[in-house]
Amino acid sequence: MSSILVVGSVALDSVKTPEGESKDALGGSAVYFSLAARLFAQVSVVGVVGRDFPAGHRRMLSERGVDLSGLKETAGKTFRWVGQFGRDLSDAKTLETHLNVFRTFRPSLSSAHRKSRAVFLANIDPDIQADVLDQMENPSIVACDTMNYWINSKPEALKKLLGRVHIFFANEEEAKKLTRQANLFCAARLISEWGPSIVVIKKGEHGVVLKAGHRLLAFPAFPMEALKDPTGAGDSFAGGFMGCLMAGGGATDEDSLKRAALYGTILASFNIEEFSTRRLERVSRKDAEERLTDFLDRLGVRTGALLDAA
Amino acid sequence: MSSILVVGSVALDSVKTPEGESKDALGGSAVYFSLAARLFAQVSVVGVVGRDFPAGHRRMLSERGVDLSGLKETAGKTFRWVGQFGRDLSDAKTLETHLNVFRTFRPSLSSAHRKSRAVFLANIDPDIQADVLDQMENPSIVACDTMNYWINSKPEALKKLLGRVHIFFANEEEAKKLTRQANLFCAARLISEWGPSIVVIKKGEHGVVLKAGHRLLAFPAFPMEALKDPTGAGDSFAGGFMGCLMAGGGATDEDSLKRAALYGTILASFNIEEFSTRRLERVSRKDAEERLTDFLDRLGVRTGALLDAA
Repeated sequence: MSSILVVGSVALDSVKTPEGESKDALGGSAVYFSLAARLFAQVSVVGVVGRDFPAGHRRMLSERGVDLSGLKETAGKTFRWVGQFGRDLSDAKTLETHLNVFRTFRPSLSSAHRKSRAVFLANIDPDIQADVLDQMENPSIVACDTMNYWINSKPEALKKLLGRVHIFFANEEEAKKLTRQANLFCAARLISEWGPSIVVIKKGEHGVVLKAGHRLLAFPAFPMEALKDPTGAGDSFAGGFMGCLMAGGGATDEDSLKRAALYGTILASFNIEEFSTRRLERVSRKDAEERLTDFLDRLGVRTGALLDAA
Repeated sequence: MSSILVVGSVALDSVKTPEGESKDALGGSAVYFSLAARLFAQVSVVGVVGRDFPAGHRRMLSERGVDLSGLKETAGKTFRWVGQFGRDLSDAKTLETHLNVFRTFRPSLSSAHRKSRAVFLANIDPDIQADVLDQMENPSIVACDTMNYWINSKPEALKKLLGRVHIFFANEEEAKKLTRQANLFCAARLISEWGPSIVVIKKGEHGVVLKAGHRLLAFPAFPMEALKDPTGAGDSFAGGFMGCLMAGGGATDEDSLKRAALYGTILASFNIEEFSTRRLERVSRKDAEERLTDFLDRLGVRTGALLDAA
């Protein structure tokens, strides 16, 4: 198994959607990412929790092979996010953010973690993302995510960071805001000029667009009638994507990227089936492969006949 | 070649987009539909134009094999639409609509047209759509489109019509408004309960979702950095879709529907490359097949390797 380091939040989320709600349930970008990526690769989490973080969550993650040696516990309370999704289950509305122990989070990597082959810098302060990167010893793949808050408050630090990144994940709104472009593809091109040769733009229910070099790829979301909680969809996509890439030895040729985008889509689709991490905790590699086969079938991949003249 | 009858508008459009503008240029749902469908099937247009309709447009369509025997010319001016697209090139803003000769359009089908194997009822008054259908002699495929105006003004007539339709094309906003559903898939399911076993929901740059029986399919749009004029994208999609179905003998099994959705996507992508019908006028079956191959390649279809374990 290849090794991926993920630096990001480990949280207790309270989420309301039209399908129900969860209270102080396991969440955070690093958690969603690692529960998806662990199907394909060895994942190490670097983060921080407070004394109130349930031991059961640690156990659950460890049992699934996630390395938590970099998950520090400090005095204080765990990061908490309170959010709500409206009827169309697209954008989250943040009701409360309590940084708690996350406020003073300054990761210091162990010597083992510094040698990780890939790193995913989840949406934290771009200065901290850069600081983590400074500690890494020549990772072959550097990926990062961000959020509107950092685009507004630290755009220059973020752009500087992008110069050191291979893969940038953003949602559509973020990509357009960051580049001040109305057209998604123009936004992706501009971002790739700042550094990342691979730009992945997540569009939620509308799927994902991927710019790799001069090539544009687009994939729909896995079509689902029933979903309960979109929290973590972007991070589970990134986890499936990065995990799949590293399982393939870290190659980023076009076929590897397509497969990564498809598996990312599949992992995100599992994630949103239930609240918090419940579905991701149970998902197996076999589940993912079966849904991928189904997904490819719906896209017409099964039938070479599609290419025959109608 | 199979035969498709299309009943809809033949127009002179004036369109402004951030990429330029066109004045009194050929447009209308029946025109966009037939210029796409003619690559695959024999298409007959039923519509009306005024005395001001340029002979060159008639000639252009006839030269491309479109049967205009049902295109009536009457005293008065041709239907005109004036619209504008904003920076993101998604929704059109209608600035002016001059129905002109279209106001009193009451199609009376010739005996040949009554025997058409398929009919596409483009977005006109649902009472007129029903009246056209009454005149048809047992068509094997009945498809229709609509628009917000009819959803607001004649929802009951529209729902009644849907009970007689096999394939319903709508954009996302229309489908949600018609069904009062926030979730696209729930909207598609409800529509299919009203009649159409195949519901095609067009999402513009985000592609298309298709419900066929209990099966949900989703396809991205062909990714394009540069586009000039989205006018007619939905109708050229429908034209490619219906044309492809009829070229396949009118079968509506899942593979036929996938192929139709892919060709619809391809034809729409050509259409928006230039203003008015300029690109569709020039597109060949070979162009469409080459772009389909490219599209399938971007989706990962070329590589059976995608299914191998990562």
